[in-house]
Amino acid sequence: MAQMLALQERILAEGRNLGSGILKIDSLLNHQIYPDLMMGMGQEMAARFQGHKIDRILTAEISGIAPAVLTGLVLNVPVVYARKIKPITMFGPVFLETAPSHTKGMEVNLLVSAEFLPPDQDVLIIDDFLATGKTLRALARMVQSARSRIVGVGVVVEKTFEGGRDLMLRSGYNIPIESLVTITSMDDGQIIFAED
Amino acid sequence: MAQMLALQERILAEGRNLGSGILKIDSLLNHQIYPDLMMGMGQEMAARFQGHKIDRILTAEISGIAPAVLTGLVLNVPVVYARKIKPITMFGPVFLETAPSHTKGMEVNLLVSAEFLPPDQDVLIIDDFLATGKTLRALARMVQSARSRIVGVGVVVEKTFEGGRDLMLRSGYNIPIESLVTITSMDDGQIIFAED
Repeated sequence: MAQMLALQERILAEGRNLGSGILKIDSLLNHQIYPDLMMGMGQEMAARFQGHKIDRILTAEISGIAPAVLTGLVLNVPVVYARKIKPITMFGPVFLETAPSHTKGMEVNLLVSAEFLPPDQDVLIIDDFLATGKTLRALARMVQSARSRIVGVGVVVEKTFEGGRDLMLRSGYNIPIESLVTITSMDDGQIIFAED
Repeated sequence: MAQMLALQERILAEGRNLGSGILKIDSLLNHQIYPDLMMGMGQEMAARFQGHKIDRILTAEISGIAPAVLTGLVLNVPVVYARKIKPITMFGPVFLETAPSHTKGMEVNLLVSAEFLPPDQDVLIIDDFLATGKTLRALARMVQSARSRIVGVGVVVEKTFEGGRDLMLRSGYNIPIESLVTITSMDDGQIIFAED
């Protein structure tokens, strides 16, 4: 699928390659947010999954929240975000998966109250990055545990060189994966996007 | 100011009083989100600050993000959310404050990169709850540290019995504080809203 050019331009203007495959785009994704740009992401995400029945969106805190909520606004469906630390208000049965955090260097929990991930729903999974794919695989497992169906996965930025798409496929998730922008290389300090 | 009735009704329908002043509304605020209801909150928040010049919104992760982003969407201004754990992508000077977490039982850091809180701006502070007021006071201090101006504070739910509004005033923040809904008592398992 074509790149979302408005996003690609902003990443080129504001993003920084910190090495080791780490892309600093906290000016537009996970510290500061431009709501109009984020709304554009939500509209583009909804367009990528046009024609699919979607009952609910699942994402993970923290950086997944904004793109998921704006996609949910366009699609008019509820959004649930997996918590990483159990809040005092969470009780009753939960779905629990773990995934390594790319930017925190440790394994994190992903927790969703069972009441917010009911069975027999068509669930779209949204997240900020598709890197190694392990967070997305954990979210996909949750949807399966809930006996619901995965419509597909939508991410803001895919880094193809970290193999996440392949991990999803090898893990049995042969589902549509849509990336608003796709980065094919961050070698030598560069940020190289896929050609359309 | 009048209560946001659509929100009050949803809290009465879905909220649970867990005792000790803890209100479980994770079905609509901090685990699951109904984007249309959240958009209504953003519109109402923007209306409450109509006529004020607002350059930027400041909130705190995690539960502040959704209401802040939708308020920012209506006002067409950038949103910055204070991080609680320093991500690997954060470097350079930061504003740092601490505040006790109501639901985690410990002191948490609030970190904002200086580049996303520039001087001489009119900043609206948004958060999910006004309880003891300590998180909001920490955010207000950050705006002052940045040599910007605080337009006011907007919260989704105020619990008047925890004294946050008074703490803000006693701390020298004599600014408009708007609450979409105001809860005056949670004694005896009830949830009592302020009369309009």
